[in-house]
Amino acid sequence: MISAGIVGGTGYTGVELLRLLASHPEVRVDCMTSRGAEGTAVADLFPSLRERIDLIFSGMDVDHLSRCDVVFFATPHGVALEMAGALLAADTRVIDLSADFRLPDTALLARWYGLTPPDEAVFKQAVYGLPEVNRKALRCARLVANPGCYPTAIQLGFLPLLEQGLIDPARLIASAASGASGAGRGAKIETLHCEVAENFHAYGATGHRHLPEIQIHLERVSRQRVGLTFVPHLAPMNRGIHATLFGFLREGISEAELNALYAARYVDEPFVQVLPLGQHPATASVRAANTCQLAIFRPQEGDTVVVLAVIDNLVKGAAGQAIQNMNLMFDLPETMGLEALPVTP
Amino acid sequence: MISAGIVGGTGYTGVELLRLLASHPEVRVDCMTSRGAEGTAVADLFPSLRERIDLIFSGMDVDHLSRCDVVFFATPHGVALEMAGALLAADTRVIDLSADFRLPDTALLARWYGLTPPDEAVFKQAVYGLPEVNRKALRCARLVANPGCYPTAIQLGFLPLLEQGLIDPARLIASAASGASGAGRGAKIETLHCEVAENFHAYGATGHRHLPEIQIHLERVSRQRVGLTFVPHLAPMNRGIHATLFGFLREGISEAELNALYAARYVDEPFVQVLPLGQHPATASVRAANTCQLAIFRPQEGDTVVVLAVIDNLVKGAAGQAIQNMNLMFDLPETMGLEALPVTP
Amino acid sequence: MISAGIVGGTGYTGVELLRLLASHPEVRVDCMTSRGAEGTAVADLFPSLRERIDLIFSGMDVDHLSRCDVVFFATPHGVALEMAGALLAADTRVIDLSADFRLPDTALLARWYGLTPPDEAVFKQAVYGLPEVNRKALRCARLVANPGCYPTAIQLGFLPLLEQGLIDPARLIASAASGASGAGRGAKIETLHCEVAENFHAYGATGHRHLPEIQIHLERVSRQRVGLTFVPHLAPMNRGIHATLFGFLREGISEAELNALYAARYVDEPFVQVLPLGQHPATASVRAANTCQLAIFRPQEGDTVVVLAVIDNLVKGAAGQAIQNMNLMFDLPETMGLEALPVTP
Amino acid sequence: MISAGIVGGTGYTGVELLRLLASHPEVRVDCMTSRGAEGTAVADLFPSLRERIDLIFSGMDVDHLSRCDVVFFATPHGVALEMAGALLAADTRVIDLSADFRLPDTALLARWYGLTPPDEAVFKQAVYGLPEVNRKALRCARLVANPGCYPTAIQLGFLPLLEQGLIDPARLIASAASGASGAGRGAKIETLHCEVAENFHAYGATGHRHLPEIQIHLERVSRQRVGLTFVPHLAPMNRGIHATLFGFLREGISEAELNALYAARYVDEPFVQVLPLGQHPATASVRAANTCQLAIFRPQEGDTVVVLAVIDNLVKGAAGQAIQNMNLMFDLPETMGLEALPVTP
Repeated sequence: MISAGIVGGTGYTGVELLRLLASHPEVRVDCMTSRGAEGTAVADLFPSLRERIDLIFSGMDVDHLSRCDVVFFATPHGVALEMAGALLAADTRVIDLSADFRLPDTALLARWYGLTPPDEAVFKQAVYGLPEVNRKALRCARLVANPGCYPTAIQLGFLPLLEQGLIDPARLIASAASGASGAGRGAKIETLHCEVAENFHAYGATGHRHLPEIQIHLERVSRQRVGLTFVPHLAPMNRGIHATLFGFLREGISEAELNALYAARYVDEPFVQVLPLGQHPATASVRAANTCQLAIFRPQEGDTVVVLAVIDNLVKGAAGQAIQNMNLMFDLPETMGLEALPVTP
Repeated sequence: MISAGIVGGTGYTGVELLRLLASHPEVRVDCMTSRGAEGTAVADLFPSLRERIDLIFSGMDVDHLSRCDVVFFATPHGVALEMAGALLAADTRVIDLSADFRLPDTALLARWYGLTPPDEAVFKQAVYGLPEVNRKALRCARLVANPGCYPTAIQLGFLPLLEQGLIDPARLIASAASGASGAGRGAKIETLHCEVAENFHAYGATGHRHLPEIQIHLERVSRQRVGLTFVPHLAPMNRGIHATLFGFLREGISEAELNALYAARYVDEPFVQVLPLGQHPATASVRAANTCQLAIFRPQEGDTVVVLAVIDNLVKGAAGQAIQNMNLMFDLPETMGLEALPVTP
Repeated sequence: MISAGIVGGTGYTGVELLRLLASHPEVRVDCMTSRGAEGTAVADLFPSLRERIDLIFSGMDVDHLSRCDVVFFATPHGVALEMAGALLAADTRVIDLSADFRLPDTALLARWYGLTPPDEAVFKQAVYGLPEVNRKALRCARLVANPGCYPTAIQLGFLPLLEQGLIDPARLIASAASGASGAGRGAKIETLHCEVAENFHAYGATGHRHLPEIQIHLERVSRQRVGLTFVPHLAPMNRGIHATLFGFLREGISEAELNALYAARYVDEPFVQVLPLGQHPATASVRAANTCQLAIFRPQEGDTVVVLAVIDNLVKGAAGQAIQNMNLMFDLPETMGLEALPVTP
Repeated sequence: MISAGIVGGTGYTGVELLRLLASHPEVRVDCMTSRGAEGTAVADLFPSLRERIDLIFSGMDVDHLSRCDVVFFATPHGVALEMAGALLAADTRVIDLSADFRLPDTALLARWYGLTPPDEAVFKQAVYGLPEVNRKALRCARLVANPGCYPTAIQLGFLPLLEQGLIDPARLIASAASGASGAGRGAKIETLHCEVAENFHAYGATGHRHLPEIQIHLERVSRQRVGLTFVPHLAPMNRGIHATLFGFLREGISEAELNALYAARYVDEPFVQVLPLGQHPATASVRAANTCQLAIFRPQEGDTVVVLAVIDNLVKGAAGQAIQNMNLMFDLPETMGLEALPVTP
């Protein structure tokens, strides 16, 4: 059995890790930390875990955590950056669900997050945890930067087109909507029920922090400079990311050929599904599951191509993908613990 | 492996059976019928099942179904009543999620549902599928009447008080709210999003069909005439039943004693949880799981006792409880296939 | 034109007052205070008011407020209690939407709210602002205690039965559900979208602060000791209160007679509507309007009577009723500024 | 007083017309037709109108309707096309909220809707009812084609850029989300609460019927061929349209200049508001009001410009705009009856 620890267990991502790991046959969560809730039973804070999870929140003690085989960070930005080095030194593997290691460039990290890594050698070890691109490197990774929720959906959507050089990389457009759990479990007026329900609005149109993450990793794939306009929106629901992507074709290719290209690209991917021609994916179809569903359109046979991508932001966009990465790191079947079907309605 | 069939697979209950059975290690769903969708791939109708379920909807053929070890009916009232006899004759066990066999009295069935059993001997065989009351009989049952969603929550809430004779059985009050999936997947104006969202209302205050079911089974437990006033409500959510129950104490007993009584009654029940004193259960805490959470209060130390009970109407109120019953009938561990944690948020 | 002030303008009740008063032909809001937002344009905080409301939040200055003819308090408990005296002394009338003056008994105020009035003479002047009971007194009132949202719905529901002595006053039961705006616009985890949406739960079952308010004012009407069990619930919606009330009839009376009794009681009330026999009121039918809709049932012709009452908690349960009271106090037509139809869907 | 008729009163648009016209000081609704509900009181179908609207649904009788000064069609496509001629002949003005007269070209009408006008002279009379473009023509119009909901938001968003020739008209992109009321009040599985709530998905990505309407009217403004990719989405809410628009700048212009350009374009428009730099509009801010809120961004100072536009699909996207057009046609103040503030939360 793999012994796992979760740092930052009072947020939605932390408790989702716990939910998913509870049905993983090869993992036992031995430690769950929280600065604010130390000493409280996890099931007291999350009554859905009653009689099933008997963990007590502990403090953020590196010694204690380093007894685990793997530690997940579901923390605000900056925490994993500070702690990862000590854990790696103790031979504990680290999967960071925050943004600390997603940008491979310290200048970008400083600019977008105001953070500086205490140890650049540790920082450089991080492998970006998108298995559909980095599977091989992830198998040997000791420190994984789990992708953001928007970046996961948007990259999986654009990848086949960019890998084949079919669209102009300088003019990518992503309009995406997220459920409110993406904003976290902090007490903020903006995410109150009365502010979110029966409402829909964009935010961060001038520059969301996920923008450089998406751009830099798409550039690696396309080996070209990528220009992306990204507008995120808050949708009145709890879970789900829907990305609506637009690109401009460089040459003629039919919708059926595009669909076949996507199907071929992802045919061996256990968690990416390409819908038949003409179907539109819905966030409800992947709720609570580690699945990404994709569809591709070429409206009016013009030069604009539309890709639709849906994931559950807490699963394929966070905790599920982290477990997928853990499976790779520990040489387990990639789908282990992630087989449950989506919950709908 | 147990071979299972599902009759009526295009509704929310049918697809929930499929979702839950897909992770049951001892069951294989071999047959899913639908009058309207015969020949269609199940995953075409429910895209959440893509690449995971490769069943094709078949017609309602008794010969085909009787090759299964067990058949679940997730059908409108009347269908199981007609078909159960033939299946039982072929040694196929039947679990009916409709109301056809819930009322043990043909006169009541005629009055509330306008139905007459074609074969009274078959009708009399049915065992009411509330394991917390009928576990022993369910182990030998060949035909199970799976309880309604409201009746499950309300009975589990009232049972300990009635078994101990602590409240006046003539004056029970149940005010309960259900999510919209309880109304089914039929196209009706009343359950459109625009009618349900941002709305809350009672219905059937003059007499809901679940009333006689609750009453008759509570009478069996209390061995007295039960008088129940039951007001169901439609809440703007997809899943969940919340029952708020009121009874009048016959003698003084403290809130702590009541809580202890409930805890003792359900201590060995794998799917019933009694919350600590003062906590209120929430439907979100049992979403997608086969759990019932209960709390008991004695406000202002008066003679009125309040019991709160929550379940997921599609799970403990339908498909999950049906699988729990199947586990009992086939001598499997009662919790098999039902261990997944609730999905929240 | 009446000059009005609003103290505590950053909450949902304050902005609802502004919305409703903006279409009142005889009122001009001259002052809106907020401790936290002083100096900010109201429309900057509430973009729905852009280009329509050009007020700037001011500080809580009694001199400034006392230049108004009437001041509404949409503040946390305790603020109006302190400030009302000075405003009344300056001949400014006061309508308090908090609980400070709702309990006519200082002992109860101390017990339930921990508050003591600085000036008992002022405290005694307050008139309870339920026009359907106190219309006459309200016409001469200088200080009005605007009822709570639950108390409005529950009192309007029980009144006819208690006035006629038809039910046992010692055994009243109220199970009520409220939208999330009733919990205010403060940043709290419990009212985040992810906690409220797709969820339903009770709270305060051991004793909600609205209980003594309801009880004491029902006692005045029934001239008897009232025993009430009140269980409030949070429903996943923004606006609306639905009260489901139960009482035990002392003598036989038909459902039709009960319906006629309710219709007669409220026939002259501009904001209370009694539905025809058999219909159930819905919160969506009164959204954004000052209406209360009622229905009465006698299920199975038994001795239990069920009353259903719906209001919009921010309108008839707060800001609308406050304006109705203001109209009475200033001898304006009672419905002035409150004629807009409900908004549905 | 203007006498008004509404054809097709059982849908959300019809009842919204009634709600808004009820507070219009110069209009009296004398006739409301419905094929299915003839003889029923309107308030029986829509309990929110109880004691306020005493109309009875009548049949679709041209003689009866032609006694009105103006008739609104809130009908499925094809009805107004057939009936408009007779009404105009009787000197009754017609405002059609369906798509029958929106496409000025009969070939397009045949292609997208399969409809042919019975009288081409009548068809040619129609004036497209977007006051921000056609105000002058609308003042003399006898037959108005009220714009679609998406077309209203998208045109108001793109107009200033296209009028000034600032963006490439061949590469416009519109990603828009609508609440479920846009899908109408018909009983369909796709718009059940359980299908819409907690879900988000695109539809009609291959070609929505609003596409040619938007395109043709933008071409008139820009006097150039317009290439538009339009992807509509269904958002889990009742009301609201949010359009996220992308265009490619032909020359350098700062975000502040763009904002100033928008502010100047709409400075005299009573129902279009341009937000200050950096603010994002939200559908909740215009709920139940005839307002369009706009914002413009130039992310990362690149060549892509982003415009955000919100309206209430039932008001500025349907009934409210129809009344605005009626005010113009009858020489009333343009804002009459449309002054109520948005309802939020």
